[in-house]
Amino acid sequence: MSKTVTVEVGLGDRAYDILIGSGLIARAGETISARLPGTRVAIVTDENVAASHLEALKSGLESGGVAVAATIALPAGEKTKGFAFLQEVVDAVLGARLERRDAVVALGGGVIGDLAGFAAGIVRRGMDFVQIPTSLLAQVDSSVGGKTGINSARGKNLIGVFHQPKLVLADSGVLDTLPIREFRAGYAELAKYGLIDRPDFFAWLEKNWREVFEGGDARIEAIAEACRAKADVVARDEFETGDRALLNLGHTFGHALEAATAYDGARLVHGEGVAIGMVLAHRFSARLNLASPDDAVRVEAHLKAVGLPTRIADIPGEMPGADKLLDYITQDKKVSRGALTFILTRGIGQSFIAKDVPSSEVLAFLRDSLG
Amino acid sequence: MSKTVTVEVGLGDRAYDILIGSGLIARAGETISARLPGTRVAIVTDENVAASHLEALKSGLESGGVAVAATIALPAGEKTKGFAFLQEVVDAVLGARLERRDAVVALGGGVIGDLAGFAAGIVRRGMDFVQIPTSLLAQVDSSVGGKTGINSARGKNLIGVFHQPKLVLADSGVLDTLPIREFRAGYAELAKYGLIDRPDFFAWLEKNWREVFEGGDARIEAIAEACRAKADVVARDEFETGDRALLNLGHTFGHALEAATAYDGARLVHGEGVAIGMVLAHRFSARLNLASPDDAVRVEAHLKAVGLPTRIADIPGEMPGADKLLDYITQDKKVSRGALTFILTRGIGQSFIAKDVPSSEVLAFLRDSLG
Ligand SMILES: NC(=O)c1ccc[n+]([C@@H]2O[C@H](COP(=O)([O-])OP(=O)(O)OC[C@H]3O[C@@H](n4cnc5c(N)ncnc54)[C@H](O)[C@@H]3O)[C@@H](O)[C@H]2O)c1
Ligand SMILES: NC(=O)c1ccc[n+]([C@@H]2O[C@H](COP(=O)([O-])OP(=O)(O)OC[C@H]3O[C@@H](n4cnc5c(N)ncnc54)[C@H](O)[C@@H]3O)[C@@H](O)[C@H]2O)c1
Ligand SMILES: [Zn+2]
Ligand SMILES: [Zn+2]
Repeated sequence: MSKTVTVEVGLGDRAYDILIGSGLIARAGETISARLPGTRVAIVTDENVAASHLEALKSGLESGGVAVAATIALPAGEKTKGFAFLQEVVDAVLGARLERRDAVVALGGGVIGDLAGFAAGIVRRGMDFVQIPTSLLAQVDSSVGGKTGINSARGKNLIGVFHQPKLVLADSGVLDTLPIREFRAGYAELAKYGLIDRPDFFAWLEKNWREVFEGGDARIEAIAEACRAKADVVARDEFETGDRALLNLGHTFGHALEAATAYDGARLVHGEGVAIGMVLAHRFSARLNLASPDDAVRVEAHLKAVGLPTRIADIPGEMPGADKLLDYITQDKKVSRGALTFILTRGIGQSFIAKDVPSSEVLAFLRDSLG
Repeated sequence: MSKTVTVEVGLGDRAYDILIGSGLIARAGETISARLPGTRVAIVTDENVAASHLEALKSGLESGGVAVAATIALPAGEKTKGFAFLQEVVDAVLGARLERRDAVVALGGGVIGDLAGFAAGIVRRGMDFVQIPTSLLAQVDSSVGGKTGINSARGKNLIGVFHQPKLVLADSGVLDTLPIREFRAGYAELAKYGLIDRPDFFAWLEKNWREVFEGGDARIEAIAEACRAKADVVARDEFETGDRALLNLGHTFGHALEAATAYDGARLVHGEGVAIGMVLAHRFSARLNLASPDDAVRVEAHLKAVGLPTRIADIPGEMPGADKLLDYITQDKKVSRGALTFILTRGIGQSFIAKDVPSSEVLAFLRDSLG
């Protein structure tokens, strides 16, 4: 058996552990009943994940003495994160007569985690919640930190609550069934933590990324380090009033690119947008004389090596011009008198929140990047 | 101008004030902008309340410099507390482009307060929220304490969040348009605080209830004392894990009676069920030799004097037998091996949580009460 790493998310009376290792799903029952004695659960999952991992989880739970009171398998994809499926999950959980100290278990990627966590946050004004993230993105990002929610026609993730899980089981083995493109997209978020404030981690990834893709202890170690990084930020700023914004490195440009492709996953998935966005953030920082151009080169080289897109031109199909991209950026944020908030950097692992970036600078930079 | 009383709800960084007085709606703008500078608001109300008070609130807000970005007037009644109207409110608030530091303002009774508070709790994972309760029940009960939510087909108030308001404006003058039956129903909850742990307040109400019904300073004083009582309990137990259960005095019997009338408000409204339930709780306590029968007599005499029903026989139409009523009671609660949790009393103002009331005793008592 390979090792299991524990990362603690230090949030006082809402503190919890993230376990990272292979085979955790098979042992889910004992792990959960040791921490939440007597709990019954409702499993929420999507049809893709259910096909590969639902039976293993069910028997892992039941053999460990955790009764499964309901199983809800929803269509896969971002569209599932809406009011209609939220209501379906809530009804099913109530229909199974679960109480506040019973648990909703999310088995899936970020879509399922966000939706199921929101349902757990509002049934009986807050039930117990366990995350079993199955995509790399969910293991290193969405399952940590307690942000839950759904999308609105007015924008993504606009409706939700902060509801921390009681436990996160990141089973590194389940990633073997994840499509490689999704794995790469999650890898962009993993590398992000190195770029924010862990230069040694970024250097380690540059050396060891092949082992992370292959699986085994290097993958476990990488996920654990990412969870530590995110847990640190979350513990400093649980409700996103300050530092947590650092996690948006690469996301301002990335979101604009996603919007510019009309969120068409065939052209660009979120993590790919983040990869391009992180390269842009480093190049933009160099242009503003904040960082050395060499850092941008190094970031691009690494992301390219793992197979991620790094340039706007890498996106298939027509892309809009610089003015239109700037529109998407300003729509995404509160703009105060022409100044934008951006995550910029002084070099690898030295990101910071810049509150007054002139939109004229952004526009000039985008023109050059597209030209 | 009559007096304004301030009651503070002591919840640390979620602390807030309840202002109680006449004419607060007309001054809402200055009050809100002094406490939440720069806030824009969306008003949520129901059609009954809108007819009498919406224009006054709008001009009160705007003259005080608070911009009204949206107004949502929903059908009156308990059915409005569901997913469909929740989504309507959320969409309207997002459509008005309100941010986290803008406010949702609930102008209405408990239905509107619960629904709008829930919407405020989930838009952008929590926006500011201001309660302007317009029913007596909402002023003395539902607007205080941060419980928000909607109903499910599986039961009332099963879906929601704890989301404390930033400010409560209880304008005692708006109660003049409240139907008298609703006023009386709210009065039952007001008297409840005397019966829980404020015997002097109950005695004061016995003497001064006519002035409370008429309006003026006695009404303001009564509402303020009720808010103090509820704020005390809430500060001790914000998330309802202990003492807050005392607020359910009269409610176990009351809910069973509401269920037995299929929640037909023409036969029984919630506060009437609570009135009968409080009398039953005192009589049941006397039967268990916990309290003197004189207290039950005194409670019944007072509630009857103000025009509330006090006996099951006071409910118009057929009522089910004792066995069926016990079924409704056990459905309402987690029953552990035949023992029920009830709020019982050792006398007026001496209520306590009894965790192991044998259901056989309840059944025998109900048989006698109906016979
Ligand atoms: N809450 C947060 O803090 C946070 C942070 C970042 C992202 N998010 C959200 O996360 C979502 C994206 O997460 P995602 O990338 O995991 O998307 P996803 O949940 O849609 O999963 C991506 C795809 O991979 C499939 N899949 C997942 N695990 C699999 C496995 N082990 N084997 C085979 N297929 C598998 C899914 O069925 C889906 O088709 C977005 O909705 C985003 O808003 C939330
Ligand atoms: N959140 C809590 O802690 C809490 C506590 C107790 C009750 N509640 C909830 O409160 C609700 C009951 O509240 P309610 O009794 O205020 O019901 P309500 O909101 O339905 O109001 C009762 C009726 O009075 C009308 N009305 C209200 N104010 C008026 C005014 N000033 N003039 C004219 N008409 C007016 C309404 O339109 C409605 O028809 C229930 O849904 C209950 O679950 C919540
Ligand atoms: Zn991301
Ligand atoms: Zn009540």
